[in-house]
Amino acid sequence: MNQAQQKIWPKIRLYVNEPFAAQQHITLASGQSHYLANVMRCREGDSIAIFNGQDGEWLASIAAVQKKSVTLAPVKKIREQKNSPDLWLAFAPIKNKTELVVEKAVELGVSALLPVFTRHAVVRSVNREKLFAHAVEAAEQCGRLDVPAIHEHKDVAALLAAWPKGRILLYGDESGGGAVLKTLLPALPRGKYGILIGPEGGFSEDEHTMLKAAAFVKPFGMGPRILRADTAAVAALASVQAWLGDWEEKP
Amino acid sequence: MNQAQQKIWPKIRLYVNEPFAAQQHITLASGQSHYLANVMRCREGDSIAIFNGQDGEWLASIAAVQKKSVTLAPVKKIREQKNSPDLWLAFAPIKNKTELVVEKAVELGVSALLPVFTRHAVVRSVNREKLFAHAVEAAEQCGRLDVPAIHEHKDVAALLAAWPKGRILLYGDESGGGAVLKTLLPALPRGKYGILIGPEGGFSEDEHTMLKAAAFVKPFGMGPRILRADTAAVAALASVQAWLGDWEEKP
Repeated sequence: MNQAQQKIWPKIRLYVNEPFAAQQHITLASGQSHYLANVMRCREGDSIAIFNGQDGEWLASIAAVQKKSVTLAPVKKIREQKNSPDLWLAFAPIKNKTELVVEKAVELGVSALLPVFTRHAVVRSVNREKLFAHAVEAAEQCGRLDVPAIHEHKDVAALLAAWPKGRILLYGDESGGGAVLKTLLPALPRGKYGILIGPEGGFSEDEHTMLKAAAFVKPFGMGPRILRADTAAVAALASVQAWLGDWEEKP
Repeated sequence: MNQAQQKIWPKIRLYVNEPFAAQQHITLASGQSHYLANVMRCREGDSIAIFNGQDGEWLASIAAVQKKSVTLAPVKKIREQKNSPDLWLAFAPIKNKTELVVEKAVELGVSALLPVFTRHAVVRSVNREKLFAHAVEAAEQCGRLDVPAIHEHKDVAALLAAWPKGRILLYGDESGGGAVLKTLLPALPRGKYGILIGPEGGFSEDEHTMLKAAAFVKPFGMGPRILRADTAAVAALASVQAWLGDWEEKP
Protein backbone atom coordinates (compact mmCIF):
# COMPACT_ATOMS: atom_id res chain seq x y z
CA MET A 1 0.00 0.00 0.00
CA ASN A 2 1.54 3.35 -0.94
CA GLN A 3 1.13 6.56 1.03
CA ALA A 4 -1.62 7.97 -1.18
CA GLN A 5 -3.61 4.77 -0.62
CA GLN A 6 -3.04 4.88 3.11
CA LYS A 7 -4.76 8.25 3.32
CA ILE A 8 -8.10 7.00 1.98
CA TRP A 9 -7.83 3.61 3.68
CA PRO A 10 -10.03 3.38 6.77
CA LYS A 11 -8.57 1.58 9.78
CA ILE A 12 -11.55 -0.74 10.27
CA ARG A 13 -11.93 -3.51 7.71
CA LEU A 14 -14.85 -5.94 7.80
CA TYR A 15 -15.89 -9.01 5.86
CA VAL A 16 -19.58 -8.49 5.05
CA ASN A 17 -21.24 -11.42 3.33
CA GLU A 18 -23.62 -9.38 1.13
CA PRO A 19 -23.41 -8.02 -2.43
CA PHE A 20 -22.16 -4.41 -2.58
CA ALA A 21 -23.58 -1.59 -4.71
CA ALA A 22 -23.27 2.16 -4.19
CA GLN A 23 -25.78 3.46 -1.64
CA GLN A 24 -27.55 0.07 -1.35
CA HIS A 25 -27.77 -0.01 2.44
CA ILE A 26 -26.61 -3.09 4.34
CA THR A 27 -27.77 -3.80 7.87
CA LEU A 28 -25.12 -5.74 9.78
CA ALA A 29 -25.79 -8.74 11.98
CA SER A 30 -25.66 -8.28 15.74
CA GLY A 31 -22.00 -9.34 16.22
CA GLN A 32 -20.56 -6.87 13.73
CA SER A 33 -23.05 -4.17 14.81
CA HIS A 34 -21.93 -4.57 18.42
CA TYR A 35 -18.28 -4.47 17.35
CA LEU A 36 -18.70 -1.22 15.41
CA ALA A 37 -21.07 0.54 17.81
CA ASN A 38 -19.72 -0.52 21.19
CA VAL A 39 -16.17 -1.81 20.74
CA MET A 40 -14.93 0.64 18.10
CA ARG A 41 -17.47 3.38 19.10
CA CYS A 42 -18.24 4.28 15.49
CA ARG A 43 -20.70 7.10 14.78
CA GLU A 44 -22.91 7.95 11.80
CA GLY A 45 -20.76 9.27 8.96
CA ASP A 46 -17.62 7.31 9.94
CA SER A 47 -15.93 5.34 7.17
CA ILE A 48 -14.92 1.71 7.19
CA ALA A 49 -13.65 -0.70 4.51
CA ILE A 50 -15.70 -3.77 3.56
CA PHE A 51 -15.11 -6.83 1.37
CA ASN A 52 -17.22 -9.87 0.53
CA GLY A 53 -14.88 -12.09 -1.47
CA GLN A 54 -16.43 -11.03 -4.79
CA ASP A 55 -16.91 -7.32 -5.27
CA GLY A 56 -13.47 -6.01 -4.26
CA GLU A 57 -12.90 -3.66 -1.34
CA TRP A 58 -15.37 -0.83 -0.79
CA LEU A 59 -15.35 2.30 1.25
CA ALA A 60 -18.58 2.32 3.26
CA SER A 61 -20.08 5.06 5.34
CA ILE A 62 -21.98 4.31 8.54
CA ALA A 63 -25.54 5.37 7.75
CA ALA A 64 -27.20 4.55 11.07
CA VAL A 65 -26.18 3.33 14.51
CA GLN A 66 -29.10 1.84 16.39
CA LYS A 67 -29.23 -0.06 19.64
CA LYS A 68 -28.86 -3.50 18.09
CA SER A 69 -27.93 -2.81 14.49
CA VAL A 70 -25.58 -0.75 12.39
CA THR A 71 -26.44 0.14 8.79
CA LEU A 72 -23.75 0.73 6.17
CA ALA A 73 -23.91 2.64 2.91
CA PRO A 74 -21.30 1.37 0.42
CA VAL A 75 -19.75 4.48 -1.17
CA LYS A 76 -17.26 3.35 -3.81
CA LYS A 77 -14.92 0.55 -4.75
CA ILE A 78 -11.37 1.28 -3.59
CA ARG A 79 -9.71 -1.97 -4.69
CA GLU A 80 -10.53 -4.49 -7.39
CA GLN A 81 -11.34 -8.07 -6.33
CA LYS A 82 -8.31 -10.36 -6.37
CA ASN A 83 -8.40 -13.87 -5.09
CA SER A 84 -5.62 -15.65 -3.23
CA PRO A 85 -3.56 -18.32 -5.03
CA ASP A 86 -5.32 -21.68 -5.38
CA LEU A 87 -3.45 -23.35 -2.51
CA TRP A 88 -5.14 -25.65 0.00
CA LEU A 89 -3.80 -26.59 3.42
CA ALA A 90 -4.80 -30.02 4.73
CA PHE A 91 -3.75 -30.32 8.37
CA ALA A 92 -4.30 -32.44 11.44
CA PRO A 93 -5.97 -30.17 14.02
CA ILE A 94 -3.65 -29.58 16.98
CA LYS A 95 -4.73 -29.17 20.59
CA ASN A 96 -4.83 -25.45 21.50
CA LYS A 97 -3.10 -24.54 18.25
CA THR A 98 -5.66 -25.10 15.50
CA GLU A 99 -6.66 -21.43 15.64
CA LEU A 100 -3.03 -20.35 15.34
CA VAL A 101 -2.64 -22.51 12.22
CA VAL A 102 -5.83 -21.04 10.72
CA GLU A 103 -4.68 -17.48 11.44
CA LYS A 104 -1.22 -18.01 9.92
CA ALA A 105 -2.57 -19.94 6.93
CA VAL A 106 -5.00 -17.13 6.10
CA GLU A 107 -2.21 -14.54 6.33
CA LEU A 108 -0.09 -16.70 4.06
CA GLY A 109 -2.89 -16.78 1.52
CA VAL A 110 -4.44 -20.27 1.46
CA SER A 111 -7.67 -20.64 -0.47
CA ALA A 112 -9.08 -23.55 1.58
CA LEU A 113 -8.43 -25.26 4.90
CA LEU A 114 -9.04 -29.02 5.16
CA PRO A 115 -9.00 -30.53 8.66
CA VAL A 116 -7.69 -34.11 8.50
CA PHE A 117 -8.14 -36.66 11.27
CA THR A 118 -5.10 -38.95 11.38
CA ARG A 119 -4.45 -42.11 13.34
CA HIS A 120 -1.96 -40.49 15.75
CA ALA A 121 -3.81 -37.20 16.17
CA VAL A 122 -5.21 -36.23 19.53
CA VAL A 123 -7.88 -33.80 18.33
CA ARG A 124 -10.99 -35.61 17.09
CA SER A 125 -13.42 -32.78 16.47
CA VAL A 126 -13.43 -29.40 14.80
CA ASN A 127 -15.94 -26.60 14.98
CA ARG A 128 -16.11 -25.40 11.38
CA GLU A 129 -18.08 -22.27 12.21
CA LYS A 130 -15.54 -21.25 14.82
CA LEU A 131 -12.66 -21.88 12.41
CA PHE A 132 -14.41 -19.84 9.74
CA ALA A 133 -14.86 -16.97 12.22
CA HIS A 134 -11.11 -17.09 12.91
CA ALA A 135 -10.40 -17.13 9.19
CA VAL A 136 -12.62 -14.06 8.71
CA GLU A 137 -10.80 -12.19 11.47
CA ALA A 138 -7.40 -13.03 10.00
CA ALA A 139 -8.56 -12.03 6.50
CA GLU A 140 -9.80 -8.68 7.85
CA GLN A 141 -6.44 -8.02 9.49
CA CYS A 142 -4.10 -9.11 6.72
CA GLY A 143 -5.82 -7.17 3.96
CA ARG A 144 -6.89 -10.05 1.73
CA LEU A 145 -10.10 -9.79 -0.27
CA ASP A 146 -11.37 -13.34 0.19
CA VAL A 147 -11.87 -15.76 3.07
CA PRO A 148 -10.71 -19.38 2.64
CA ALA A 149 -13.33 -22.12 2.74
CA ILE A 150 -13.23 -24.52 5.71
CA HIS A 151 -13.89 -28.02 4.41
CA GLU A 152 -15.61 -30.83 6.31
CA HIS A 153 -13.06 -32.96 8.20
CA LYS A 154 -11.91 -36.25 6.62
CA ASP A 155 -9.48 -39.05 7.43
CA VAL A 156 -6.46 -39.63 5.17
CA ALA A 157 -8.18 -42.33 3.07
CA ALA A 158 -11.23 -40.13 2.46
CA LEU A 159 -9.06 -37.10 1.74
CA LEU A 160 -7.20 -39.03 -0.96
CA ALA A 161 -10.37 -40.57 -2.38
CA ALA A 162 -12.05 -37.17 -2.72
CA TRP A 163 -8.92 -35.33 -3.92
CA PRO A 164 -9.74 -33.38 -7.12
CA LYS A 165 -8.05 -34.30 -10.37
CA GLY A 166 -5.27 -31.98 -11.49
CA ARG A 167 -4.30 -30.72 -8.03
CA ILE A 168 -0.88 -31.78 -6.70
CA LEU A 169 -0.71 -32.66 -3.00
CA LEU A 170 2.63 -31.68 -1.47
CA TYR A 171 3.02 -33.86 1.55
CA GLY A 172 5.31 -32.95 4.46
CA ASP A 173 7.01 -36.29 5.00
CA GLU A 174 8.67 -36.15 8.42
CA SER A 175 10.19 -39.62 7.92
CA GLY A 176 12.93 -38.19 5.69
CA GLY A 177 11.85 -39.81 2.44
CA GLY A 178 10.68 -36.67 0.67
CA ALA A 179 12.13 -34.48 -2.05
CA VAL A 180 14.25 -31.43 -1.28
CA LEU A 181 12.04 -28.31 -1.64
CA LYS A 182 14.64 -26.23 -3.48
CA THR A 183 14.78 -28.90 -6.15
CA LEU A 184 11.09 -29.81 -6.16
CA LEU A 185 9.41 -26.38 -6.21
CA PRO A 186 11.24 -24.71 -9.12
CA ALA A 187 10.45 -27.78 -11.24
CA LEU A 188 6.68 -27.52 -10.70
CA PRO A 189 4.36 -25.45 -12.90
CA ARG A 190 2.02 -22.75 -11.57
CA GLY A 191 -1.31 -24.36 -10.83
CA LYS A 192 -3.54 -25.86 -8.18
CA TYR A 193 -1.79 -27.21 -5.10
CA GLY A 194 -2.48 -28.59 -1.68
CA ILE A 195 -0.09 -29.05 1.24
CA LEU A 196 -0.60 -31.83 3.79
CA ILE A 197 0.95 -31.49 7.25
CA GLY A 198 0.60 -34.34 9.72
CA PRO A 199 0.00 -34.38 13.47
CA GLU A 200 2.65 -34.08 16.21
CA GLY A 201 3.10 -37.84 16.34
CA GLY A 202 3.53 -38.14 12.57
CA PHE A 203 1.50 -40.28 10.21
CA SER A 204 0.94 -43.98 10.88
CA GLU A 205 2.58 -46.66 8.72
CA ASP A 206 -0.58 -47.30 6.70
CA GLU A 207 -1.23 -43.58 6.22
CA HIS A 208 2.34 -43.19 4.90
CA THR A 209 1.73 -46.12 2.54
CA MET A 210 -1.57 -44.71 1.25
CA LEU A 211 -0.01 -41.30 0.68
CA LYS A 212 3.01 -42.64 -1.16
CA ALA A 213 0.83 -44.78 -3.41
CA ALA A 214 -1.18 -41.84 -4.77
CA ALA A 215 0.18 -40.49 -8.06
CA PHE A 216 -0.79 -36.88 -7.28
CA VAL A 217 1.10 -36.89 -3.94
CA LYS A 218 4.62 -35.41 -3.83
CA PRO A 219 6.43 -35.93 -0.49
CA PHE A 220 8.94 -33.30 0.61
CA GLY A 221 11.24 -32.75 3.58
CA MET A 222 12.01 -29.69 5.69
CA GLY A 223 15.47 -30.44 6.99
CA PRO A 224 17.06 -32.23 9.91
CA ARG A 225 15.15 -30.73 12.85
CA ILE A 226 11.79 -31.96 14.11
CA LEU A 227 9.26 -29.20 13.47
CA ARG A 228 6.12 -28.86 15.55
CA ALA A 229 3.02 -29.34 13.42
CA ASP A 230 2.11 -25.65 13.51
CA THR A 231 5.65 -24.57 12.61
CA ALA A 232 5.66 -27.11 9.78
CA ALA A 233 2.40 -25.73 8.36
CA VAL A 234 3.68 -22.13 8.33
CA ALA A 235 7.11 -23.12 6.99
CA ALA A 236 5.66 -25.21 4.15
CA LEU A 237 3.11 -22.55 3.19
CA ALA A 238 5.80 -19.86 3.12
CA SER A 239 8.12 -21.93 0.92
CA VAL A 240 5.35 -22.82 -1.52
CA GLN A 241 3.98 -19.27 -1.73
CA ALA A 242 7.49 -17.91 -2.28
CA TRP A 243 8.01 -20.21 -5.25
CA LEU A 244 4.60 -21.01 -6.72
CA GLY A 245 2.36 -18.36 -5.21
CA ASP A 246 2.00 -14.62 -5.35
CA TRP A 247 5.04 -13.34 -3.47
CA GLU A 248 6.16 -11.44 -6.56
CA GLU A 249 3.35 -9.00 -5.81
CA LYS A 250 3.71 -5.96 -3.55
CA PRO A 251 1.56 -5.18 -0.49
CA MET B 1 16.03 -40.74 12.36
CA ASN B 2 15.66 -44.30 11.09
CA GLN B 3 13.97 -47.11 12.99
CA ALA B 4 17.20 -48.65 14.32
CA GLN B 5 18.12 -45.25 15.75
CA GLN B 6 14.70 -44.79 17.31
CA LYS B 7 15.22 -47.93 19.39
CA ILE B 8 18.29 -46.65 21.22
CA TRP B 9 17.02 -43.05 21.38
CA PRO B 10 15.75 -42.19 24.84
CA LYS B 11 12.61 -40.06 25.03
CA ILE B 12 14.07 -37.48 27.39
CA ARG B 13 16.58 -35.09 25.87
CA LEU B 14 18.38 -32.45 27.94
CA TYR B 15 20.81 -29.62 27.25
CA VAL B 16 23.52 -29.97 29.92
CA ASN B 17 26.10 -27.19 29.89
CA GLU B 18 29.10 -29.37 30.93
CA PRO B 19 31.78 -31.26 29.01
CA PHE B 20 30.91 -34.95 28.44
CA ALA B 21 33.23 -37.93 28.87
CA ALA B 22 32.34 -41.58 29.47
CA GLN B 23 31.55 -42.24 33.13
CA GLN B 24 32.59 -38.73 34.22
CA HIS B 25 29.62 -38.07 36.48
CA ILE B 26 27.66 -34.83 36.11
CA THR B 27 25.48 -33.50 38.90
CA LEU B 28 22.57 -31.53 37.49
CA ALA B 29 21.38 -28.16 38.78
CA SER B 30 18.19 -28.05 40.82
CA GLY B 31 15.82 -27.23 37.94
CA GLN B 32 16.83 -30.17 35.74
CA SER B 33 17.13 -32.45 38.80
CA HIS B 34 13.58 -31.60 39.80
CA TYR B 35 12.37 -32.16 36.24
CA LEU B 36 13.95 -35.63 36.01
CA ALA B 37 13.18 -36.79 39.55
CA ASN B 38 9.73 -35.35 40.14
CA VAL B 39 8.18 -34.44 36.80
CA MET B 40 9.45 -37.37 34.70
CA ARG B 41 9.85 -39.68 37.74
CA CYS B 42 13.15 -41.07 36.52
CA ARG B 43 14.91 -43.74 38.59
CA GLU B 44 18.54 -44.85 38.88
CA GLY B 45 19.55 -46.75 35.76
CA ASP B 46 17.12 -44.94 33.42
CA SER B 47 18.60 -43.57 30.19
CA ILE B 48 18.31 -40.07 28.82
CA ALA B 49 19.99 -38.20 25.95
CA ILE B 50 22.16 -35.17 26.62
CA PHE B 51 23.86 -32.53 24.47
CA ASN B 52 25.99 -29.50 25.29
CA GLY B 53 26.48 -27.81 21.92
CA GLN B 54 30.01 -29.22 21.51
CA ASP B 55 30.36 -32.93 22.22
CA GLY B 56 27.49 -34.32 20.14
CA GLU B 57 24.58 -36.23 21.64
CA TRP B 58 25.30 -38.74 24.40
CA LEU B 59 23.38 -41.52 26.00
CA ALA B 60 23.56 -40.98 29.76
CA SER B 61 22.48 -43.23 32.56
CA ILE B 62 20.99 -41.84 35.74
CA ALA B 63 23.57 -42.71 38.40
CA ALA B 64 21.86 -41.28 41.47
CA VAL B 65 18.56 -39.62 42.35
CA GLN B 66 18.78 -37.62 45.53
CA LYS B 67 16.33 -35.26 47.14
CA LYS B 68 17.68 -32.14 45.46
CA SER B 69 20.06 -33.43 42.83
CA VAL B 70 20.29 -35.98 40.07
CA THR B 71 23.65 -37.34 38.92
CA LEU B 72 24.22 -38.54 35.36
CA ALA B 73 26.84 -40.90 33.99
CA PRO B 74 27.50 -40.26 30.27
CA VAL B 75 27.68 -43.69 28.60
CA LYS B 76 28.52 -43.16 24.93
CA LYS B 77 28.19 -40.74 22.07
CA ILE B 78 25.17 -41.58 19.91
CA ARG B 79 25.38 -38.66 17.44
CA GLU B 80 28.28 -36.52 16.24
CA GLN B 81 28.15 -32.78 16.95
CA LYS B 82 26.64 -30.79 14.10
CA ASN B 83 25.92 -27.11 14.33
CA SER B 84 22.97 -25.31 12.81
CA PRO B 85 23.49 -23.10 9.72
CA ASP B 86 25.04 -19.72 10.47
CA LEU B 87 21.78 -17.78 10.27
CA TRP B 88 20.85 -15.00 12.68
CA LEU B 89 17.37 -13.65 13.33
CA ALA B 90 17.12 -10.00 14.35
CA PHE B 91 13.58 -9.24 15.45
CA ALA B 92 11.54 -6.63 17.28
CA PRO B 93 10.19 -8.34 20.42
CA ILE B 94 6.39 -8.65 20.23
CA LYS B 95 4.02 -8.41 23.17
CA ASN B 96 3.04 -11.93 24.33
CA LYS B 97 4.64 -13.46 21.25
CA THR B 98 8.39 -13.13 21.75
CA GLU B 99 8.54 -16.64 23.20
CA LEU B 100 6.65 -18.04 20.24
CA VAL B 101 9.15 -16.42 17.86
CA VAL B 102 12.08 -17.84 19.86
CA GLU B 103 10.55 -21.34 19.86
CA LYS B 104 9.88 -21.32 16.11
CA ALA B 105 13.26 -19.77 15.28
CA VAL B 106 15.07 -22.47 17.23
CA GLU B 107 13.11 -25.21 15.46
CA LEU B 108 13.94 -23.59 12.14
CA GLY B 109 17.62 -23.69 13.01
CA VAL B 110 18.81 -20.14 13.73
CA SER B 111 22.27 -19.80 15.25
CA ALA B 112 21.62 -16.51 17.10
CA LEU B 113 18.67 -14.36 18.14
CA LEU B 114 19.09 -10.57 18.21
CA PRO B 115 16.34 -8.55 19.89
CA VAL B 116 16.01 -5.16 18.17
CA PHE B 117 14.19 -2.20 19.67
CA THR B 118 12.59 -0.17 16.90
CA ARG B 119 10.87 3.20 16.97
CA HIS B 120 7.35 1.77 16.51
CA ALA B 121 7.78 -1.26 18.76
CA VAL B 122 5.73 -1.60 21.91
CA VAL B 123 8.03 -3.95 23.81
CA ARG B 124 10.96 -2.10 25.39
CA SER B 125 12.63 -4.78 27.48
CA VAL B 126 13.71 -8.38 27.08
CA ASN B 127 14.77 -10.90 29.66
CA ARG B 128 17.72 -12.63 27.99
CA GLU B 129 17.91 -15.43 30.54
CA LYS B 130 14.23 -16.23 30.06
CA LEU B 131 14.63 -16.20 26.27
CA PHE B 132 17.65 -18.49 26.54
CA ALA B 133 15.65 -20.90 28.71
CA HIS B 134 12.96 -20.98 26.00
CA ALA B 135 15.60 -21.56 23.37
CA VAL B 136 17.01 -24.48 25.38
CA GLU B 137 13.57 -26.06 25.70
CA ALA B 138 12.91 -25.73 21.98
CA ALA B 139 16.36 -27.16 21.15
CA GLU B 140 15.69 -30.15 23.41
CA GLN B 141 12.40 -30.82 21.66
CA CYS B 142 13.42 -30.35 18.04
CA GLY B 143 16.51 -32.55 18.21
CA ARG B 144 19.17 -29.97 17.44
CA LEU B 145 22.61 -30.26 19.01
CA ASP B 146 23.22 -26.60 19.77
CA VAL B 147 21.34 -23.73 21.38
CA PRO B 148 21.34 -20.33 19.66
CA ALA B 149 22.94 -17.40 21.44
CA ILE B 150 20.67 -14.59 22.63
CA HIS B 151 22.40 -11.28 21.92
CA GLU B 152 22.03 -8.09 23.95
CA HIS B 153 19.22 -5.90 22.57
CA LYS B 154 20.12 -2.99 20.27
CA ASP B 155 18.32 -0.31 18.31
CA VAL B 156 18.51 -0.33 14.49
CA ALA B 157 21.40 2.15 14.34
CA ALA B 158 23.48 0.14 16.84
CA LEU B 159 22.58 -3.14 15.12
CA LEU B 160 23.89 -1.80 11.81
CA ALA B 161 26.98 -0.23 13.39
CA ALA B 162 27.93 -3.51 15.09
CA TRP B 163 26.99 -5.76 12.15
CA PRO B 164 29.92 -8.09 11.34
CA LYS B 165 31.71 -7.81 8.02
CA GLY B 166 30.88 -10.52 5.49
CA ARG B 167 27.37 -11.30 6.79
CA ILE B 168 24.43 -10.32 4.56
CA LEU B 169 21.37 -8.91 6.33
CA LEU B 170 18.13 -9.89 4.59
CA TYR B 171 15.61 -7.33 5.60
CA GLY B 172 11.85 -7.97 5.46
CA ASP B 173 10.72 -4.72 3.86
CA GLU B 174 6.98 -4.47 4.40
CA SER B 175 6.80 -1.26 2.36
CA GLY B 176 6.96 -3.23 -0.88
CA GLY B 177 10.35 -2.04 -2.05
CA GLY B 178 12.22 -5.32 -1.58
CA ALA B 179 13.46 -8.01 -3.94
CA VAL B 180 11.37 -11.07 -4.80
CA LEU B 181 12.67 -14.01 -2.73
CA LYS B 182 12.53 -16.55 -5.54
CA THR B 183 14.86 -14.34 -7.55
CA LEU B 184 17.03 -13.16 -4.67
CA LEU B 185 17.74 -16.40 -2.79
CA PRO B 186 18.97 -18.64 -5.64
CA ALA B 187 21.41 -15.86 -6.63
CA LEU B 188 23.06 -15.73 -3.19
CA PRO B 189 26.02 -17.92 -2.20
CA ARG B 190 26.04 -20.20 0.87
CA GLY B 191 27.45 -18.22 3.78
CA LYS B 192 26.67 -16.16 6.83
CA TYR B 193 23.27 -14.50 6.87
CA GLY B 194 20.96 -12.56 9.12
CA ILE B 195 17.25 -11.87 8.72
CA LEU B 196 15.67 -8.70 10.11
CA ILE B 197 11.93 -8.63 10.80
CA GLY B 198 10.33 -5.41 12.03
CA PRO B 199 7.61 -4.75 14.57
CA GLU B 200 3.83 -4.85 13.95
CA GLY B 201 3.77 -1.13 13.09
CA GLY B 202 6.64 -1.45 10.60
CA PHE B 203 9.92 0.45 10.65
CA SER B 204 9.98 4.24 10.91
CA GLU B 205 11.05 6.41 7.98
CA ASP B 206 14.55 6.99 9.35
CA GLU B 207 15.00 3.30 10.20
CA HIS B 208 14.04 2.44 6.59
CA THR B 209 16.54 5.02 5.34
CA MET B 210 19.36 3.69 7.55
CA LEU B 211 18.67 0.12 6.46
CA LYS B 212 18.58 0.93 2.77
CA ALA B 213 21.83 2.86 3.00
CA ALA B 214 23.85 -0.10 4.34
CA ALA B 215 25.65 -2.03 1.62
CA PHE B 216 25.26 -5.40 3.38
CA VAL B 217 21.46 -5.03 3.68
CA LYS B 218 19.24 -6.75 1.07
CA PRO B 219 15.54 -5.87 1.36
CA PHE B 220 12.99 -8.50 0.31
CA GLY B 221 9.19 -8.77 0.16
CA MET B 222 6.78 -11.54 1.15
CA GLY B 223 3.82 -10.88 -1.08
CA PRO B 224 0.66 -8.79 -1.05
CA ARG B 225 -0.79 -9.67 2.36
CA ILE B 226 0.19 -7.98 5.63
CA LEU B 227 1.92 -10.61 7.77
CA ARG B 228 1.97 -10.36 11.55
CA ALA B 229 5.52 -9.96 12.84
CA ASP B 230 5.66 -13.53 14.21
CA THR B 231 4.30 -15.00 10.96
CA ALA B 232 6.81 -12.93 9.00
CA ALA B 233 9.72 -14.25 11.10
CA VAL B 234 8.74 -17.91 10.58
CA ALA B 235 7.96 -17.40 6.88
CA ALA B 236 11.27 -15.67 6.19
CA LEU B 237 13.30 -18.23 8.15
CA ALA B 238 11.63 -21.10 6.31
CA SER B 239 12.27 -19.58 2.89
CA VAL B 240 15.92 -18.86 3.66
CA GLN B 241 16.58 -22.28 5.22
CA ALA B 242 14.94 -23.99 2.24
CA TRP B 243 17.26 -22.21 -0.16
CA LEU B 244 20.47 -21.36 1.67
CA GLY B 245 20.30 -23.57 4.77
CA ASP B 246 20.30 -27.27 5.55
CA TRP B 247 16.94 -28.47 4.28
CA GLU B 248 18.69 -30.90 1.97
CA GLU B 249 19.47 -32.97 5.07
CA LYS B 250 17.16 -35.63 6.47
CA PRO B 251 15.82 -35.79 10.06
